[in-house]
Amino acid sequence: MSDRKLRLGAFIMATGHHIAAWRHPGSQIDSGVNIDHYIEVAKTAERGLFDQVFVADSPGVARRGQAEAFSRQGRVSYFEPVTLWSALAAVTRHIGFVATASTTYEDPFLLARKFASLDHISKGRAAWNVVTTGAEDVHGNFGLDKHPDPELRYERAHEFIDVVKGLWDSFEDDAFLRDPQSGVYFDPDKLHTLNHSGKHFKVSGPLNLERSPQGYPVIVQAGSSEPGRELAAATAEAIFTAWTSLAEAQAFYRDVKGRLAKYGRRPDQLLVLPGISPVIGRTQAEAEAKWAELQRLIHPSVGLGTLRALWKDEDFAGWDLDAPPPYFPEPDKGRNSRQHVVLQLAKREGYTVRQLYEYLAGARGHWVVVGTPEHIADQMQAWFENEAADGFNVMPPVLPESLNEFVDLVVPELQRRGLFRTAYEGRTLRENLGLERPVNRYTLERGAKAA
Amino acid sequence: MSDRKLRLGAFIMATGHHIAAWRHPGSQIDSGVNIDHYIEVAKTAERGLFDQVFVADSPGVARRGQAEAFSRQGRVSYFEPVTLWSALAAVTRHIGFVATASTTYEDPFLLARKFASLDHISKGRAAWNVVTTGAEDVHGNFGLDKHPDPELRYERAHEFIDVVKGLWDSFEDDAFLRDPQSGVYFDPDKLHTLNHSGKHFKVSGPLNLERSPQGYPVIVQAGSSEPGRELAAATAEAIFTAWTSLAEAQAFYRDVKGRLAKYGRRPDQLLVLPGISPVIGRTQAEAEAKWAELQRLIHPSVGLGTLRALWKDEDFAGWDLDAPPPYFPEPDKGRNSRQHVVLQLAKREGYTVRQLYEYLAGARGHWVVVGTPEHIADQMQAWFENEAADGFNVMPPVLPESLNEFVDLVVPELQRRGLFRTAYEGRTLRENLGLERPVNRYTLERGAKAA
Repeated sequence: MSDRKLRLGAFIMATGHHIAAWRHPGSQIDSGVNIDHYIEVAKTAERGLFDQVFVADSPGVARRGQAEAFSRQGRVSYFEPVTLWSALAAVTRHIGFVATASTTYEDPFLLARKFASLDHISKGRAAWNVVTTGAEDVHGNFGLDKHPDPELRYERAHEFIDVVKGLWDSFEDDAFLRDPQSGVYFDPDKLHTLNHSGKHFKVSGPLNLERSPQGYPVIVQAGSSEPGRELAAATAEAIFTAWTSLAEAQAFYRDVKGRLAKYGRRPDQLLVLPGISPVIGRTQAEAEAKWAELQRLIHPSVGLGTLRALWKDEDFAGWDLDAPPPYFPEPDKGRNSRQHVVLQLAKREGYTVRQLYEYLAGARGHWVVVGTPEHIADQMQAWFENEAADGFNVMPPVLPESLNEFVDLVVPELQRRGLFRTAYEGRTLRENLGLERPVNRYTLERGAKAA
Repeated sequence: MSDRKLRLGAFIMATGHHIAAWRHPGSQIDSGVNIDHYIEVAKTAERGLFDQVFVADSPGVARRGQAEAFSRQGRVSYFEPVTLWSALAAVTRHIGFVATASTTYEDPFLLARKFASLDHISKGRAAWNVVTTGAEDVHGNFGLDKHPDPELRYERAHEFIDVVKGLWDSFEDDAFLRDPQSGVYFDPDKLHTLNHSGKHFKVSGPLNLERSPQGYPVIVQAGSSEPGRELAAATAEAIFTAWTSLAEAQAFYRDVKGRLAKYGRRPDQLLVLPGISPVIGRTQAEAEAKWAELQRLIHPSVGLGTLRALWKDEDFAGWDLDAPPPYFPEPDKGRNSRQHVVLQLAKREGYTVRQLYEYLAGARGHWVVVGTPEHIADQMQAWFENEAADGFNVMPPVLPESLNEFVDLVVPELQRRGLFRTAYEGRTLRENLGLERPVNRYTLERGAKAA
């Protein structure tokens, strides 16, 4: 048995990952704005020895579909991630905090400052999930006429991360003497002004905050597109991704690990963490009944909303939910092979409209595993031991209920198998994840000159 | 005895308000980045039934003077305010949190979001101290070639606040039904898109966060310039200010209260809170000895640095610190009458160079009261009962020591006199301060239409 251990993150989507979670009695119905809910969930994840909790984010309201479907959307009101995690940092000791923040819509100086603050406040437990923001309905909040194209967004992201890391290096680690006798507080030779001037940003620095416990918060990336993979290979230390089969996950794992060498990085410097949404029962039948109960909570107008990605101009009026779709659209050419797969499946299996939207909406494109703790551990072990995953982003379908079940039932099973820790190894998130603390660039230069 | 009570804020300048506080054994030397220090201080303020804690802020390093003087500067590394207060919100129950944030350098959508998050997380204890940023050395952090002029900064500030309030009203208070039976989460008719388009900002909204417990976080303003007073009269609910005599404070109080009527506001809708830096001893002699000890800790190069505002091009080489200044400069014409007063005083009293810089640096322009708890309470009472103050922003010279002394010695004296609360009155900061909760603009419109 190797020493390699699973890394576990808990994906905290307010009421839960399932699209109808908020209607389930096991969820905290107002959880997006309920700090006590988040405290409970973070403490549960810490009890389960998770490496980190994670929140997704978009800086705006995604207004999709007609008012009637929109009114059933449980994800319109939620905390800004860094503000949220800072509150939880004060009431936890070990768990790491991954906050999503956008390089397209935030400012590099302010972002560098808030994440460095979180890293200090949490004593080394902060991580930044770098996103370029996929949603097309937020640009108006920032005075833009349109959402920038992916190419521009990723170009900006590379430069943004570069600036932020430069700001985090403003003070060398040993810059602060704080000697009351001599009256010297810090060494100005160890304070560095970045003076960045690039295509997208002009940022002088220095940051008004000393280097944080982890040097840099852990850099996380969550896009699996071609430019997303490249950004991850260049800069990220963990990548969240969505695959529903071992073969796909293995291909992705090989692909991103293979991109590291050209940036002078080793494969173990980027952790690949696919999402898994576990539906846990003490028996297989109990788990399946739970899943069916959740699926039944998907309101037809919400379910039909998810079909709009396939039937673009259809309003579904008069469709019989319990019969197969009255016709099938041509799938978009090339662009989305997943659409094609889904339509083929629906035809082959003779899915009713309801079965089809339940299939699509319930999983939200992620890997749903329905079964006993042993079955779920089997699946996780297979991916972990076969170059598909270094760990998982666990997406509890209903919060807090499903996270409690995972911690009480699946974690002990993973521990019995020697796959998961039985106590935190380190003090910081980096130490728990087995990631190195980056050396300050100016300290490196100083060392190079001295050598 | 009237029911009117003093409002008290604690001004938390990391190691303390005194310029040499960090060298004093009663200070926490690394407090700018020590979360446990802030937790202790916030809990002390809460034990003392303070309304709020307050942090000043500037988004950058103020690099003033030569490297030698700069190296003695204790205020170069500190937390971003909202991130800081959010952590403390989780470990306190009553105290309010005033975070300073700049309308010149922040983004209105992101600012609205983080303050609304803090208001939810703290269950109604957030306040925003609106500043336009006075420092001229931070613009480079945001890609600007120069610091905008005051006129432009204040124009932008008015529009910024207007946008932020509009975003805070995005959802009406009763927008969220959260009915699991019907599957309706919220009422889209109670979600409003701002669509602001002005001279400085174009912001569509809506904010992706429901209305917070206080409706809006309390709006605070801290500038006493002409445009600062006007901004306060138009928008603020509390104003922090610096005066060293009762007569000056009274003139200011009358002036700002007199500006409210033209904005349709009542005098009690803006609280005037001058700063007071109390140096507390059980006897007058003990207090004076404490003050002398602090003043002695001002390093000559730091002290001389404060004289640079008067002697602009002087490098002070060869000056005898224990003799009067070798010459006196002409004070700047008109622009700064305070300079003139200080120079007159120094000549009249025959101050040595050291006495002069101690006079200037120790107080930082604020009202220092040195004496017994009774003496300090006398002074506060005189201002409070004579239309100079609705309360005070207490600036402990050394933290945590001086705040402990204030809470243990001065607060009970104020309570004995019936000037200060003996228990928190409300649940939110607004309730404790006696400020109304603003009605959502769209709910108002709806009411007007219905009437």
